[in-house]
Order: sequence, then structure tokens, then C-alpha cells
Amino acid sequence: MTVIDIPEGSLFGANNLPYGVFSTAGTEPRVGVRVGDSVLDLSVVFDDPAFAEPTLNAFMAQGRARWDEVRAALQSLVTGDVPAEAVHAVADVELHLPIEVADYVDFYASENHASNLGRLFRPDNPSPLMPNWKHLPVGYHGRSSTVVVSGVDIVRPCGQRKGPNDPAPVFGPSIRLDIEAEMGFVVGVGSPMGSSITPDEFADHCFGAVILNDWSARDIQAWEYVPLGPNLGKSFATSISPWVVPLAALEAARVDTPVQDPEPLPYLKGTEKWGLDIDLEVEWNGHVVSRPPYAQMYWSPAQMLAHTSVNGAATRTGDLFGSGTISGPEKDQRGAFIELTWGGKEPVQVGDETRTFLEDGDEIAISATAPGPDGTRIGFGEVRTRILPAKDAGR
Amino acid sequence: MTVIDIPEGSLFGANNLPYGVFSTAGTEPRVGVRVGDSVLDLSVVFDDPAFAEPTLNAFMAQGRARWDEVRAALQSLVTGDVPAEAVHAVADVELHLPIEVADYVDFYASENHASNLGRLFRPDNPSPLMPNWKHLPVGYHGRSSTVVVSGVDIVRPCGQRKGPNDPAPVFGPSIRLDIEAEMGFVVGVGSPMGSSITPDEFADHCFGAVILNDWSARDIQAWEYVPLGPNLGKSFATSISPWVVPLAALEAARVDTPVQDPEPLPYLKGTEKWGLDIDLEVEWNGHVVSRPPYAQMYWSPAQMLAHTSVNGAATRTGDLFGSGTISGPEKDQRGAFIELTWGGKEPVQVGDETRTFLEDGDEIAISATAPGPDGTRIGFGEVRTRILPAKDAGR
Repeated sequence: MTVIDIPEGSLFGANNLPYGVFSTAGTEPRVGVRVGDSVLDLSVVFDDPAFAEPTLNAFMAQGRARWDEVRAALQSLVTGDVPAEAVHAVADVELHLPIEVADYVDFYASENHASNLGRLFRPDNPSPLMPNWKHLPVGYHGRSSTVVVSGVDIVRPCGQRKGPNDPAPVFGPSIRLDIEAEMGFVVGVGSPMGSSITPDEFADHCFGAVILNDWSARDIQAWEYVPLGPNLGKSFATSISPWVVPLAALEAARVDTPVQDPEPLPYLKGTEKWGLDIDLEVEWNGHVVSRPPYAQMYWSPAQMLAHTSVNGAATRTGDLFGSGTISGPEKDQRGAFIELTWGGKEPVQVGDETRTFLEDGDEIAISATAPGPDGTRIGFGEVRTRILPAKDAGR
Repeated sequence: MTVIDIPEGSLFGANNLPYGVFSTAGTEPRVGVRVGDSVLDLSVVFDDPAFAEPTLNAFMAQGRARWDEVRAALQSLVTGDVPAEAVHAVADVELHLPIEVADYVDFYASENHASNLGRLFRPDNPSPLMPNWKHLPVGYHGRSSTVVVSGVDIVRPCGQRKGPNDPAPVFGPSIRLDIEAEMGFVVGVGSPMGSSITPDEFADHCFGAVILNDWSARDIQAWEYVPLGPNLGKSFATSISPWVVPLAALEAARVDTPVQDPEPLPYLKGTEKWGLDIDLEVEWNGHVVSRPPYAQMYWSPAQMLAHTSVNGAATRTGDLFGSGTISGPEKDQRGAFIELTWGGKEPVQVGDETRTFLEDGDEIAISATAPGPDGTRIGFGEVRTRILPAKDAGR
């Protein structure tokens, strides 16, 4: 037996306990929980085949009572003796995509982001926000097949782009490759077709949260997106962090959303607070360029899930929904480079260099922390990705 | 042993052999092929565990050489003696959703449909087609969780709608519930992230085709869709026919697409013909109201798949992509009621009644046939659905 070392002030103490999927050399992926700088192998410490699976889906499908039971058991386990063979250093394991993604929906829930994008993409429109924006959480379905975990390199996508004065579109590597710093929420227990989930039922369905980077090729997106929304400008990749922080670890982070005016329709109203005081940080080649504040998001994740299901659409274990880019009111709180550089017109300083959009070889790391109980803080870890040059550019 | 009766002129002769998933009372779903008015149980006639699966995915993943091998074997099998216990009357079996849907993408490939919708949704725009429309197959990701098979009733969805003169949106059952008569294409063998599929590689990846009804709540859609595209106006349900017609059965149906002007970019050009001469028929409460001609579609399914993957997005076994509403140039060839009734202004005769959009209790059946070899015809069967009243309308 051994005792897991939890460094003083660790973002991964017994107050957090995020779940992930890991493997060590020559072994199969299985479920673990992060404790300090270690991973505790749940397939060893619990007699439950769900933890021997290569994704969290089987465990997530067991429901909230079971999530609470396992969390309570872990909170005492990780502060006592555990089998030595169940403990691995984080540095020694490979982390895998933690969930099998069912449907992926991406929202657009930051008023600052939606307003900035409105000004940039639709400069002739008198109002930067569309008339529907304050009545419903606008969202669209994204591609599940290309959700990848932190550490997976992204190949610069090719596609069609056409500047406003170009006579015809051209094909080639995107020249306006961008990030969107978001939080992602994972559905543990779905809802059958024909039913819906209220905002106050959120915690019975949502298992936890991850950091999400919604890679965006702005030139491809700008040309394709009218009238049916983004497709190839987004579908080439979405990166998430490897640790799913359980909703129960976010109790101390729960805050009111900003005032919603006009008042939302009844199906979007709940009695519980589901704004979340999560602080993100975006590093570009090791230099912090933005600190997006999740607490500023207009729509809560509980409202996003309620909206997704109110028409009777089924939700499933493994559904992932993104918040949309998190941008605060200040320039250095903007979660996408198109906003940070105002469409590429105002380059930002990245160490000794300047940047507008991403260059080949650039590395982006988005990290996040939130308040934990009793003045502690908890961490989401990070989603870190390198940009590789385009392939097939001559097609 | 027995011989399967294939009635003279059957749309399900040895020239067709579509695959589906069926069960009989008290048995598990498994793979069968339709022959005449019978279903041949492939889990009995072939020694391959893929045919004992509850979806076609395992078989589809085996690839084109195996698809060809099984088809050749079946073409001789079904005209000779087969084990009696492998044959069931279609009337005696339950048909299930034939595929486990991975990503679902819906396109917009009919010029007549896109032009009609442009005139209806954006009457102030000088051109009914958006500038991108003739350069790329416009499409968006839809919801996989709500793809259902023919025979599954659809509950009228609730959602937000707002007429142009309403001061604020209201919530309630959709009052403009519509169909979209489409063909759907099923990916058998996918492509890894970072790679792409050319139009001429289509038959190595696409397993077959189904009829698809992309249910659309026009009032919900009109209010939500700017700027990120349709979401709840579509995500409540998509119905497909139970029989997947293999691409190999469509050889005689292959035609050129209409002339594409301007010439598509190289990645969208192939040397093979992948237009398809498929005739659809839409029945509303038993009365034919439209006969949409698939051969008029501007973009081919091979171009849609090439476009989907050209940015390096992974494709997977079970990916489903819809053609978009099939509308011909004539009024009685329009595949959506919003076009057929011109936004509800020109009701259509449905037997003794008139209709604009769908009423509770209405039943829609979309069927399709195509040329087979040697002057024969083959059938896709039908997708038949009844509309049930809304639930939770008071929410």
C-alpha cells in the first residue's frame, strides 16, 4: 500500500478528483482519477467493469447517485492507503480522449464574443447581435468524429476561401486559422426522444466539464456559413482537455449568470445558479495572450441543455456541448484571435514576435481554474495543441 | 430448403438486394436482405458474426471487396435453394434502424430547392442563391441521436417562434411542421483525420443509399437560424427507410449531374458519373402530392463526401449524409411543403381536404425507385411516418 502525495495548494486535491482515461506502456486504456501529480487507477480500486473501459461512458451512464457514491468513496480513499500498483505519476501515463462523443453541439453564449463577431462578420448590420440572440442560446451541431484530446497535433485545414473582392474562390490552406477558448460540458445521462430536460434537472444529466478549443478557419467559415452555418471552417478539429471535472467539484464556482434581459421564456428559467466562475488562460507559444472569464457568459450550461432538448431531441451519454468562445469585455479577455487582433488588423505581441492568426508550428495551451470549497482552487488542467503544416495543399 | 418467391416485376429482385436489420417475435435484431416480399436472414446463410449484429456497421466496415463478395454470393443464393429457417415474410418481421449513425450531415444540393427557399426566407435579397452555392455543396451537421426508422411516429416539436411583426417570441408547438424529401447516403468505410476522399473514391467509401425525411419546423427554423444555421428546427427527428440499397445496385441509375457552371474547383471534380436517376414520390395521407426527381440535383453525393473530408475531417462507418430537399423545376416536383404551398399561401389538395403544413395525425410516406440493369427497376421501399400531437406544450 502507499499514500498519494498531494502537494500543498495542488489544483488536483480531494476537492477536485477529475476523471480521465489513461494507459501506461503496454497496457490498455482505462479510467483513472487525477490526484496531485498522480493518476489513481479506478479499475484497480473499484470492482466495477465500467472502470476498465476505454472511455468514461459506461461509468457516466450509471447516473448521478453512482457518481456521488464513487466521489464520496474517492474522497476518503485518496487521503488514506491505496494499493501501490494503482498509482502512476501523471508524467508516466498517456492520456486518451476521455469520452466517446455522441452528438456535439457548440453554442455562442458570450455576449461580448457574439457582438464582436457580429461587428467583424456583418459590419453593415445596424446591431451586432442578431434579434434572436437574447431569446435563446444560439447553437449548431458540430462534427463528433474530430473531437480529439490535448496533445493531438492539428493539421492546418485546406478549403475554399474568397475575399470580398476576389472574383472566384480559391482552394488552399487556411490563412486565418484561429482558436476559440471554450468550456465543454459532457452529458452523463441522456433523455429519450420526445422528452426534455429542465434547467433545474441539469445536475442529473451533466456529468462534468472540460476545456474545449473549437479550432476555426475563419476564411473557410466566412465563405461557407451563409445560410446554413459553419461546416468545414470548424469540422476539421475540436480539442478537449483530458480530465473531466465532475459537476460536484464545481459547487463553490456556481454563480448567477449576468442579468438576462429580456426575461427568458419559462423553459429556460430555473431556480438554481448555473453560471460558473471559471478563469481561463490562453497561452500562445508559452506567452499568455488572454484570460477569458467564464462567469461573464450570458447563457448558462443548464440553459443550453434545456434548449437542446426542449423540442424533444434525444440526448445521450457522451453528448458534448461547447459554450462558445468565452470573451470578457476587455481586449485581453477575448477568447478568439479574430477578436483579439480585430480581424487581423491589430497584431498581438507573442513574446518577441507578433501574430494575427496561427502560424505552422505554433502551440496553444488553454488552462482553467475555479474556486473549490473553503477558499481552495481546483484545476481543469489544459488543452495543448501544436499546428502542423497543411497536407494536400495542391489538390 | 426452400426457394424464395420473387414476383414478376418485383422492385426487390436479385438486381437490388438491399440490406436491413430485422427481428421476428422474441428474437434479437440481425442483418437481412430483402428479396421479393421476403427477408433472408444473413446470420443463417453466412458464417460471419457481422450479420448477427443489430446494425449494419460491422459488415459495412469490412469494405468494398467484401461488399462485392457478399453481393455476388447473394445473387446466386437467392435464385436457388436456401434454408427454410432463413426466410421470413416481410409482413412478419419488425424492421429496425439499419445503421448506428456516426456523424450526420445534411446538404442543400437542389438548385430549385435552394432558390425557392432563398425567395421565401430572404425575400429582400436580390439573388435567391447565395454567392457560395454554385462553388461548394453547402451543408451543416445535424443531430445523430434522433435519426429513426420508417414507422416511428414523430411528436410535433415545441419551440420558439416569432413572426416578423410579433414583439417577442412565443413558445409552443410548431405550427409550420414540414417534410424534406431527400436521399441519404451511408458511409461504410471512413477516412482518418487529416486525409480526404476524392470524388472518384466514392464507391470505396459509400456503402449505399436510403430515403430520408428531414423533418423541419419552419417557424422554429426561421427564428433561430441566423447566423449559425438550423438547430432545433431540425434536430427533433430525421426518418430513414429501413433498407439500405447498395451502391452496386445503382449502376444503371448513374447519370451526369446537371451542367455545373462555374466549373467546380479540382477537389470537387471527378471522372465518374455520380448523378443518380432516382424517382421519389411523396404521399400525404395516401395521396401523391409530389414526385421529386433526384437526377436534377446539382451536386452529386460523391462531391458531397469529397467536400466533407477535404479539410481533413475524419469520416467513419455509419456516417450519414442527406442530399437536401429534392425539388424539380415543376410545382408538383417540390420535396418540401413550404415550397409546394409557397410558404403556406397556396394550400394543396390532399384528397378531400386541403393542407399547408402538417396536421396532427397526418401520415407521410416517401418512396423511391431507380433503373436497374436490363430495363428492370429497383425499389428503396419507403419511409412512412405519422405525426403525433405535441407534448409539454404548456412548458
